[in-house]
Amino acid sequence: MNTQEKWMKEAIKQAKKAYEKDEVPIGCVIVKDNKIIARGYNKREMLQQSYAHAEMIAIQKACKKLNTWRLEECDLYVTLEPCPMCAGAIIQSRIRNVYYGASDFKGGSVKTCIQLFDIKQYNHHPSYVSGICEQECAQLLKTFFKNKRNKNKS
Amino acid sequence: MNTQEKWMKEAIKQAKKAYEKDEVPIGCVIVKDNKIIARGYNKREMLQQSYAHAEMIAIQKACKKLNTWRLEECDLYVTLEPCPMCAGAIIQSRIRNVYYGASDFKGGSVKTCIQLFDIKQYNHHPSYVSGICEQECAQLLKTFFKNKRNKNKS
Repeated sequence: MNTQEKWMKEAIKQAKKAYEKDEVPIGCVIVKDNKIIARGYNKREMLQQSYAHAEMIAIQKACKKLNTWRLEECDLYVTLEPCPMCAGAIIQSRIRNVYYGASDFKGGSVKTCIQLFDIKQYNHHPSYVSGICEQECAQLLKTFFKNKRNKNKS
Repeated sequence: MNTQEKWMKEAIKQAKKAYEKDEVPIGCVIVKDNKIIARGYNKREMLQQSYAHAEMIAIQKACKKLNTWRLEECDLYVTLEPCPMCAGAIIQSRIRNVYYGASDFKGGSVKTCIQLFDIKQYNHHPSYVSGICEQECAQLLKTFFKNKRNKNKS
C-alpha cells in the first residue's frame, strides 16, 4: 500500500461513518507534514445544511486547527470527486494536492463535468490525482444506493 | 427603485458591515416570500475560515432558519458575482434565482470566468441576473482596495 492509498483508507473510514448514519457515504481527510490534521464525513441530512459535505467539514476543521484560511501545505483526500462547491472551497483554501477515489458523473468538477482546477483566471490551481482506491470508494456508494432503493421498494 | 434594487440595497448594507470590519466588502441577503430570511457578509479574515464568504454565511443561516438544506423557493442577492465555491453552494442549495451586482474578473463563476449554472450534468440550474446596482457594489470594492494600497504605502 503506497502513501496515497494509506491516506485514502482513512478517508474511507470517514465515509463508513457517514454510511452508518444513513448519509451518502463520502469521507475526507486533510494531511499536513505526514499527519492527518482534519477529518470529515458527509452530514447533509443530519445537519440539514447544504454546505455539509465531507470536504467542507474537513476544511473548516483544518482552518480552525491551523488558525488560518490558507491551507497551502495541505493535501486533501476524498472518496468521491469533489462537486463545484467543494472544488471551489479547495481553491479558496489554496490546498496543494487533491487525491480522490471514485469519479462523479453527475457533479464531479475536477475532471468529469468540468475542470475547475484548470481555470486560468482563478488565483490557485491545485494538483490532483484521481482513482485512488477507486473500486472501494465506488462500491461503498453503490451498496448505499442499492440498499436505499430496496428499502423504498419494500 | 424596483424590487431587485430594493433587495440589493440590503445586500449592500451587509457589504458595508464587512467594510467596517476591514473585510473585503461583499454582502448577501436571501429572500423568500418577499421577506429577508438570512443575511451574510464576508468574514474570511475575522474567522480565518476559507468558507466564510457572504453567500456561504447567508446560506447556512437560511438552512438553519428553514430547517432544510433545500432552499428551492429562495432568491439570493449578492453584491459581487459568486466564486466557484459560492456558485456551487447555490447549486447544492437549489436556490431559484441569483441576482448579483458587480462582475468578478478573477473568480466570477456565474458568467465571467465560467458559467457554472449552465453545466448540463448538474442537477440544478439557477436563473441569474447580473449588474443590479452594479456601480455602487463595484465602487465599494474599489474604495476598499484603494485605501488598502494607500495604507500599505504609508
